[in-house]
Amino acid sequence: MKRELSVCLSTSMIQSFDLKNKVVVVVDIFRATSVICTALSKGMTEVIPVNEINEVKPFLNRENFLIAAERGGEIVEGFKLGNSPLSYLDNSSIVGKKLVLTTTNGTKAINYSLEADEILIGSFLNLSSLEQVLKQKNKDCIIFCSGWKGLVCLEDTLFAGCLASRLLKSDKFFSHCDSVVLSRKTFDSASKDLLSFLINSSYKERTRELNMNADINFCLSIDKFKDVPFYKNGKLLID
Amino acid sequence: MKRELSVCLSTSMIQSFDLKNKVVVVVDIFRATSVICTALSKGMTEVIPVNEINEVKPFLNRENFLIAAERGGEIVEGFKLGNSPLSYLDNSSIVGKKLVLTTTNGTKAINYSLEADEILIGSFLNLSSLEQVLKQKNKDCIIFCSGWKGLVCLEDTLFAGCLASRLLKSDKFFSHCDSVVLSRKTFDSASKDLLSFLINSSYKERTRELNMNADINFCLSIDKFKDVPFYKNGKLLID
Repeated sequence: MKRELSVCLSTSMIQSFDLKNKVVVVVDIFRATSVICTALSKGMTEVIPVNEINEVKPFLNRENFLIAAERGGEIVEGFKLGNSPLSYLDNSSIVGKKLVLTTTNGTKAINYSLEADEILIGSFLNLSSLEQVLKQKNKDCIIFCSGWKGLVCLEDTLFAGCLASRLLKSDKFFSHCDSVVLSRKTFDSASKDLLSFLINSSYKERTRELNMNADINFCLSIDKFKDVPFYKNGKLLID
Repeated sequence: MKRELSVCLSTSMIQSFDLKNKVVVVVDIFRATSVICTALSKGMTEVIPVNEINEVKPFLNRENFLIAAERGGEIVEGFKLGNSPLSYLDNSSIVGKKLVLTTTNGTKAINYSLEADEILIGSFLNLSSLEQVLKQKNKDCIIFCSGWKGLVCLEDTLFAGCLASRLLKSDKFFSHCDSVVLSRKTFDSASKDLLSFLINSSYKERTRELNMNADINFCLSIDKFKDVPFYKNGKLLID
């Protein structure tokens, strides 16, 4: 039997979805889910997503734990790691360590998804592996875009459109969800050059002064990694 | 000075917007705002939008008041009028009367907008007049799509994209809002034939058995009316 595919465009909308028995793919392209994919594929053993900055306190100065805290695009004062996937690339000091991560949008989206049957982490970095994993599951699927502070953001919508188009090309999924149509149409008009399309997005405004071009280029790279992180007992893991 | 233009894609997202000092255009194409435009342009003197069905009770059996109640696309049992704009067209019995209206999404969106400086009612039926009125206002503008039960809906998004494109072609508005980009791209890919584009939307599923084709065709007609309804003291009026 075909499975239903839906897209949720922002955290503020997730309460209108029934997550029970579903697989939810959490997406925060710039940059939480790109960070999670990178950190785990590059040798960290687990990522613990927490909502609030004070929730990282129990993990401070503990052996084998690194803490990453980001708000509004910047590393929170007092922390060494933020939300840049490049910090986890070719960095031998992270190998074998555990990451405690709190970000503006993405880690909240993960914690809003706890009623789902399964939570997976999606990014352009693990797109094709994610597509294959979802096709093998016998469950309805919601692609959950974290957005930006309760609003829609273009980069997550583009990813949702890209993944939805791949899934719906197979005979395994159907959709009656308007956000699927919307995100696919937006991806169609942007797919030739995601980067210049995103220059028109508010993200350009959000990050203009944060010098994030290298991060953005990296986060738009397709299939850098083969792992699909999943959530289990408060942790994000890979097989 | 240029004014900022934003789009809110659903009622569930409106709390992420600051409505103060803004003009908010409430949109529920299928069908509440199409009904409001039709009822007022065809001779009704005011429309009172209420959230709940029991709020219409004080108006029952009062002279000069008509009651319209819709839930899930259908007339609520016990009421004669629902949410079809065609009921208000060429219907002499409505002229000079007041309408109390409660619908699934649109009337809720109006009541969520009360912090705005001004609330206007938008539909394809009064598109060009609305565009002119907004260009003359010296205020930032939010196009507020009612959506469907907290989710995004395609027909409201298409209207938002259409209106946003018209406003941004003038030198009076700018935008940093990703939902503006999204709705404009969707409108661009649909503008040649809105009706067949909407066949791909969940609305088709929502209304398949309600025989609403005549309503849908009417609601997609551009510039049937010149009036732009506005909210004042609990009522929607035209000049």
